Amino acid sequence: MKNNFDYKILQKDTKSKARAGEIHTPHGVIETPCFVAVGTQATVKTLSPSDLKTIGVELLFGNTYHLHLRPGEEIVKEFGGLSKFMSWNGPTITDSGGFQVFSLGQKKITLFADDNNTEVDIVSIKDDKVIFRSHLDGSKHEFSPETSIKIQKKLGADIILCFDECAPHPLTHEYTKAAMDRTHSWALRCIEAFKDPTTTYFKQAIYGIIQGGVYKDLRINSAKFITTQNFDGIAIGGVSVGESKKEMRDVLEWVTPFLPDEKPRHLLGIGEVDDILDAVFYGMDTFDCVIPTRFGRYGIVFAYPPVGNVKNRFRYDLTKTINAKDKGPVIDGCKCYTCQNYTKGYLHHLFKANELLAYRLASYHNMHFLVNLTKEIRKSILEDRFEKLRKKWLKT
Amino acid sequence: MKNNFDYKILQKDTKSKARAGEIHTPHGVIETPCFVAVGTQATVKTLSPSDLKTIGVELLFGNTYHLHLRPGEEIVKEFGGLSKFMSWNGPTITDSGGFQVFSLGQKKITLFADDNNTEVDIVSIKDDKVIFRSHLDGSKHEFSPETSIKIQKKLGADIILCFDECAPHPLTHEYTKAAMDRTHSWALRCIEAFKDPTTTYFKQAIYGIIQGGVYKDLRINSAKFITTQNFDGIAIGGVSVGESKKEMRDVLEWVTPFLPDEKPRHLLGIGEVDDILDAVFYGMDTFDCVIPTRFGRYGIVFAYPPVGNVKNRFRYDLTKTINAKDKGPVIDGCKCYTCQNYTKGYLHHLFKANELLAYRLASYHNMHFLVNLTKEIRKSILEDRFEKLRKKWLKT
Repeated sequence: MKNNFDYKILQKDTKSKARAGEIHTPHGVIETPCFVAVGTQATVKTLSPSDLKTIGVELLFGNTYHLHLRPGEEIVKEFGGLSKFMSWNGPTITDSGGFQVFSLGQKKITLFADDNNTEVDIVSIKDDKVIFRSHLDGSKHEFSPETSIKIQKKLGADIILCFDECAPHPLTHEYTKAAMDRTHSWALRCIEAFKDPTTTYFKQAIYGIIQGGVYKDLRINSAKFITTQNFDGIAIGGVSVGESKKEMRDVLEWVTPFLPDEKPRHLLGIGEVDDILDAVFYGMDTFDCVIPTRFGRYGIVFAYPPVGNVKNRFRYDLTKTINAKDKGPVIDGCKCYTCQNYTKGYLHHLFKANELLAYRLASYHNMHFLVNLTKEIRKSILEDRFEKLRKKWLKT
Repeated sequence: MKNNFDYKILQKDTKSKARAGEIHTPHGVIETPCFVAVGTQATVKTLSPSDLKTIGVELLFGNTYHLHLRPGEEIVKEFGGLSKFMSWNGPTITDSGGFQVFSLGQKKITLFADDNNTEVDIVSIKDDKVIFRSHLDGSKHEFSPETSIKIQKKLGADIILCFDECAPHPLTHEYTKAAMDRTHSWALRCIEAFKDPTTTYFKQAIYGIIQGGVYKDLRINSAKFITTQNFDGIAIGGVSVGESKKEMRDVLEWVTPFLPDEKPRHLLGIGEVDDILDAVFYGMDTFDCVIPTRFGRYGIVFAYPPVGNVKNRFRYDLTKTINAKDKGPVIDGCKCYTCQNYTKGYLHHLFKANELLAYRLASYHNMHFLVNLTKEIRKSILEDRFEKLRKKWLKT
């Protein structure tokens, strides 16, 4: 086992590429397929680590861009790394900071103090690095493959990601190829930076990221390149930034034949029910998404069939007046804390009154729903009935 | 036992008027002295009923003004009353709505749609009722002793309060007397309305409220009047609206000799450490205050001695930079969930990042602190060492 990191397949599905496995990390075992809770600023919005443990969350996703700006990687390192800093004490993964930085790329900001009200680009992409301004205070920062890895080594997550260019959709083939080439050359620099023992504080594993936008040739090119480097796992990026649901499936169909069995696979930014079912179908192991807590704060709650179905995307809006007098739980039969203890009518009231408990209880239900879905998926793979389960959900 | 309501003294202190007792209600027993958690809109901000049970909260305080406007007393009644509506399932108390309405009294609002941008008073006080406008939408409402009691009977708390005039400080002797006379005549009307079996849905008890501002003659007059009516308990109002700490103690000194031993006594709106210790000294049993959750949301946390003392009012500010690298808990030795699981540094980060979990964890600690303080006070009375405990805290 390299760096206390290992991946084992327990069962491969006979009717799809789905697999049930185990990722071993210094902070514990992750049973896959697994929905990964996003804790952007070292907290999963509204939920405590104890809530997450009770729900059954096994892996937390932190954002390097946000943690670098606040509280800063030095503080996180001093507290013993991300997992300990936030009292989660379980497995964690961080992104490279690239996604957030490139998301800033289409915005401009006006600077006041120093710059005479000049309007400047927030992001400037160069072949060797990216220069950007903080969304918090406009201060100037740089991310390069080397700085991203150095920061992630201080944040100390069990799994860290390569610094890649995840450019906003839509893009020409020409630009996408240039971004992919940058991503590949950065991948090699990330591997070198990762190896450097003088910047190593924790036991960590590193995943490479396959890019290539919506172009088949580029995706295959990228899959071939990334899978032949010395990475502990493989991530697929850029499928959540504006492409259609069909395009996500196309990318998985093109890319997955090149993925080695023995490495764990993470799909970045995916969290809708049908997307998770299909991602597992194509052999993906883990998926992260802010959906459960973001929707939770808006009063949108996930629903099992028959209330939830493909058409309503397995969710409904608790803030609608129809819920005001409803004495039932969010979903009949749901075993989560929220559904076991509170009525729709009460939750509706909390949302109308803008009470913080509303956001927490709805986020709790949503997180439980998606974590429970992936646990059910895992069980079905182990019992060789995943396709039946998938079709049951997708036919609703 | 009248209406499933009863009060028993278990132990009277030998060196003060302090007493340890039990209030029996349809939803359970309240061990006194007891800090009452305020759940303005049928929720104690950021905390779940399960959190409150774990902390040891025994009585929740709901606000009739807010619950009348949203979700409305009809809905609360349909859900089985306040305690069941919010899944608390323990004892509850509601105020009369008067405090909030009279707090609105010094504001004006500009009306748009109907009234040609006319500036109007929000509150108009008449001898038989109070007319006011909702802070939510400007709509017109009326509270009279009869409507307040009718609303509270639908809200269904175990303990309800008389509709009183709690006028903002400072006031002349003349106005205070007029307000007190109104409060007394309203008290008699409340008792009549409370008796009406056609508006009775739940088993409830009713407390009268002693007013009289900062004037000794009026307070004594009010104490004599209220204590001789047929109330199940006695509340003292108007000590939290602008008077100094000394004035609260003066009022208690004037009033408490007139309070009958056999009725429970509630002090409205009190929640600072020294105020609670002195209120118990004067024989008060229960106290409600928004302090733990309001301060919690600002990052102000309560501290046991030696960190907390009379000078810093037993609290400090977690958002100050000095806490950023601190790996200790909010208070060493504190047994609350927050202190057992999180560092000051992490909580400081959550506050700086405006994360909702910050408000919850700080509110949890603060509520635990005050509930624990009153439990410790109760224990000291039962063991005849309350004065020693009180002096120990007040000498810090």
